[in-house]
Amino acid sequence: MEIYLDNCATTRVCDEAAAACLRAMTAEYGNPSSLHRKGLEAESILTETRKTIGQMLSCPPECIRFTASATESNNLAILGSAAARPHGGKTIVITAVEHSSVENAAAALEKKGYTIRRVHPRPDGHFAVEDFLNAVDDDTLLVSFMMVNNEIGTVLPYETLIPALRRKAPKVLLHMDAVQGFTKYPVSMKRLDLDFLTFSGHKLYAPKGIGVLYIKKGTRLFPLAYGGGQEQGLRPGTEAVELVAALKEALLLCQRDGRLWETKYRALNQRLREGAAALPRVSVNSPEDGAPNIVNLSVLGIRSEIMLHFLEEKGIYVSSGSACSKGAKSPALAAFGLTPERIDSALRISFSRETTEDEVDALLAALEDGIRRLRPVIEKNGKELP
Amino acid sequence: MEIYLDNCATTRVCDEAAAACLRAMTAEYGNPSSLHRKGLEAESILTETRKTIGQMLSCPPECIRFTASATESNNLAILGSAAARPHGGKTIVITAVEHSSVENAAAALEKKGYTIRRVHPRPDGHFAVEDFLNAVDDDTLLVSFMMVNNEIGTVLPYETLIPALRRKAPKVLLHMDAVQGFTKYPVSMKRLDLDFLTFSGHKLYAPKGIGVLYIKKGTRLFPLAYGGGQEQGLRPGTEAVELVAALKEALLLCQRDGRLWETKYRALNQRLREGAAALPRVSVNSPEDGAPNIVNLSVLGIRSEIMLHFLEEKGIYVSSGSACSKGAKSPALAAFGLTPERIDSALRISFSRETTEDEVDALLAALEDGIRRLRPVIEKNGKELP
Repeated sequence: MEIYLDNCATTRVCDEAAAACLRAMTAEYGNPSSLHRKGLEAESILTETRKTIGQMLSCPPECIRFTASATESNNLAILGSAAARPHGGKTIVITAVEHSSVENAAAALEKKGYTIRRVHPRPDGHFAVEDFLNAVDDDTLLVSFMMVNNEIGTVLPYETLIPALRRKAPKVLLHMDAVQGFTKYPVSMKRLDLDFLTFSGHKLYAPKGIGVLYIKKGTRLFPLAYGGGQEQGLRPGTEAVELVAALKEALLLCQRDGRLWETKYRALNQRLREGAAALPRVSVNSPEDGAPNIVNLSVLGIRSEIMLHFLEEKGIYVSSGSACSKGAKSPALAAFGLTPERIDSALRISFSRETTEDEVDALLAALEDGIRRLRPVIEKNGKELP
Repeated sequence: MEIYLDNCATTRVCDEAAAACLRAMTAEYGNPSSLHRKGLEAESILTETRKTIGQMLSCPPECIRFTASATESNNLAILGSAAARPHGGKTIVITAVEHSSVENAAAALEKKGYTIRRVHPRPDGHFAVEDFLNAVDDDTLLVSFMMVNNEIGTVLPYETLIPALRRKAPKVLLHMDAVQGFTKYPVSMKRLDLDFLTFSGHKLYAPKGIGVLYIKKGTRLFPLAYGGGQEQGLRPGTEAVELVAALKEALLLCQRDGRLWETKYRALNQRLREGAAALPRVSVNSPEDGAPNIVNLSVLGIRSEIMLHFLEEKGIYVSSGSACSKGAKSPALAAFGLTPERIDSALRISFSRETTEDEVDALLAALEDGIRRLRPVIEKNGKELP
């Protein structure tokens, strides 16, 4: 039995995407830079996928650049913006709960003399537009924020934040890391006046190794690397055509079924919360109005890793934080105001289109069993339980 | 009918690699950074591939880093070396025939104040070790050279060059772009004392989107981007596990059958050269002692693109230069001393493990037909034929 509930870390590739990947590897295998038909055939895969993304984001296809990951897209947006504006502002505004790729790219600029301002959530766990506006001044080059937090599912107020920032500081660049939000919520570049938007394939049923960066027309950016003129000179190297082919199929699937999945996530979310409420010492860390596919909860007194491996023995896979931090303590959870005790015992459960009610029930039963069985171990170790 | 003779641009993915890719997408789909079994399963794919490469290169597996392309690996070696040594040498030595990723990464450093020295081939088309030694001085940070030229197949004298450079300048970093040479010729890091070696999957029957960088133990390097600690902090972003899985299978195939292919390439090469010698106005640009899988030739008086598209109509795919330059005039061919007339009419034919004698014969027949048919067109256009 395998119950995979770690879909914020990565998803199983859908059959449609896998088939497209296979076809591109063995039949449409040309180099998109080649001038002959095999090359054009490969290039048209890139073009068609750009069109699909353009349709989903309501933007011209030429605003879409393919990278190897959201990490690369985030770095390109942040480091590339700074490099393109040596005489521009020297302050970057981010949030205190960003993914490590945004946090660490900003930290790299900090070492070069930039100032990084981190907007924190309010005590209620939500971000206030006002706090971003107060962080922005004449020296601000870029504001970078995530759409949906990857650890507890908090949705940032991007719909009001973006126009408010544009009004106060029209020249400041705006970047949204939409890795956990794109295809879960509608994202239109016509409604959201962003300079950069980032997402990756492997969170939405496409393979790992493919990222996307939307760049607003006219927004300048320097590349991180140099070579052939691929991706309009911004991202050289032969494009991973088979991954781009797969991405298109996965996106079409999300576009077709995303609404259905959302309804399902809401039901699963409620089922999990209700079940968790009946368990001793379990408290939910995710906000009620967070992304419905993410439930972060703490089993107080039982360390995340202990419970994670207990669940693993039953074939149930959850996360003790974001995968990218390899289980290290999360600074984001602390920023959200969670107590050290809650952080130490936090588990992230994240659904996919394939998750069933039975799987949620199996998780709840396993948690109950874990709480019962692991309690004596902990008590034996002399640790006090709350 | 499809006769694909552009295998230096990219290769069709072998069935073994495609199957491994498919398996990793749909069954072993965990995030290698996840702490549970699905994560470990994915991580072990990375570990096993690193081991396979380590065995092939005679180096410890931990010297192997995965990237998205040889372009990225080349940039990481060149830009990362410079970034890690702000007080180091300020001269980079490359050759005049490098791939655009090396040439343009060096050019980017040139803009920052570095001096780039380009070693040219001698009039006979070969590189002299002496010329590299003369280019190196106390200010040299790095020497970067390709193993096998991608356009005409010239093999650089790396076996004597590397020890000679180490003797003269022990502290200078050495980087070899082995994209067209690795798996074609044996490459041992025990025999070749390099700091960096680069190759990519899609030239050797693995998919596009996966590159490798060998880094000698102890050689310092700065990353191009920041994020999770993947690839020992040098290359963040969730690893493209399915491509790494595919790479391993393709490498095992190359290891098993490489010798057989080489024998076949030599026979095909001779067949093509002999057939070309019998055609009017055809001259071979590749050196006799070049890589046997590459034959660059010119059909004097008929522009590369014209012949390329003529052949394409017959289902035969060749290149008019390196794919990465999208058909732009090659500075490398000029550096090799080819006349403008030869450069304008150059075609690169490159074999794969699947290329047959019949395919070479079909190419020769098509070239003959092209020469006959395209001649009147050209004469009508008032161009003089040689």
